[in-house]
Amino acid sequence: MDQFTIRNVKSVVNLMCFVLIIRGGSAHGHGSKSHHRPNRSNAPSFARWLVAENTWGVMSTIANDLSGAPFGDVVSYSDGRPYHGTGIPYFYLTTLDPTARYALEDQRTSFTISEYPLGTCGRIDPENPTCSKLTLTGKLNEVEAGSEEAIMAKKALFSKHAEMRNWPKDHSFKVYRLDIEELFLIDFYGGPKPLTVDQYFLPKNEGRLE
Amino acid sequence: MDQFTIRNVKSVVNLMCFVLIIRGGSAHGHGSKSHHRPNRSNAPSFARWLVAENTWGVMSTIANDLSGAPFGDVVSYSDGRPYHGTGIPYFYLTTLDPTARYALEDQRTSFTISEYPLGTCGRIDPENPTCSKLTLTGKLNEVEAGSEEAIMAKKALFSKHAEMRNWPKDHSFKVYRLDIEELFLIDFYGGPKPLTVDQYFLPKNEGRLE
Repeated sequence: MDQFTIRNVKSVVNLMCFVLIIRGGSAHGHGSKSHHRPNRSNAPSFARWLVAENTWGVMSTIANDLSGAPFGDVVSYSDGRPYHGTGIPYFYLTTLDPTARYALEDQRTSFTISEYPLGTCGRIDPENPTCSKLTLTGKLNEVEAGSEEAIMAKKALFSKHAEMRNWPKDHSFKVYRLDIEELFLIDFYGGPKPLTVDQYFLPKNEGRLE
Repeated sequence: MDQFTIRNVKSVVNLMCFVLIIRGGSAHGHGSKSHHRPNRSNAPSFARWLVAENTWGVMSTIANDLSGAPFGDVVSYSDGRPYHGTGIPYFYLTTLDPTARYALEDQRTSFTISEYPLGTCGRIDPENPTCSKLTLTGKLNEVEAGSEEAIMAKKALFSKHAEMRNWPKDHSFKVYRLDIEELFLIDFYGGPKPLTVDQYFLPKNEGRLE
């Protein structure tokens, strides 16, 4: 082969690989941004990174129609526009789904996310403590419709979940905020990392996400 | 280029693409098997497919040290060897983690999985009802160590989570089974699909997964 043919062949290989990588990324969320992964020795930054990079998780509430059993539900969320995470998870929920109804009866809520969907765990099992997981426990509150916070939260949500903008008006989707009271972060062996709400919200941790 | 060169170039392209597809698959679970997706009009088969294809989810229990708040935790599971799903989710848990401790105090447990990690939702948002989600609610029970069921369950778990075999012996991992009492399946618009436990476990639904 001459040099020109070799260059063309390389281009085809690169193009095909690029298409495959893009396809892989789009099907599994925002994996392409995960190169910002902070050092796990910095628990607050690591937790903020997990919250900023993920786009969905499981919200657990108390099911009053199942004798008070816990009930987990898959929900999407956003803590801010990409690279501008606030650490506060906002949700767009309808009371047609049980989770919002349960939370209106009993606000106690936990929200759980995994590092696994980001693609940065590689071949490590999702239950292995080095594939991080974070559980935020607190109270779910409806954000006042039309308030500055609601406008900001909608921007945050729609920037990561474009289709939400067009979800049916007659389903009465409303913005909810999780007011975090406890954090449970596993990002290595040795049990949960000590991490307070104040540490999690320190501005310097936000800075690490830029 | 002569024919031999073209064949070699094609082989390189195919090999590189194969490696990328395999890598993509391993980082995000068993997405490569998801072409078996049943028709969503068959709720029992669809639920069994979601359980058989997924490898991890969020287990929600009642946190007795957080005033009875719900607590979600990322866990791996298996309902059988690949293509031999039983519909029963088995887990490999240690009481070093709070979830197993909570379940030993109050067995009420829900286990939530999403279709999103399988890659079959495409660009549809994880909260969109056409990207399916399933919540199994019931009681978590420890499987008797050394029993036939425990041996079978370990085979099921280790076939999908190879590294579990080598998890630290001094962490006392034990096999747990979720005894399902209620199913909450969303796989399209219009609210949860009517689905009983008996329908879910009908042998014909298992057959659809082969």
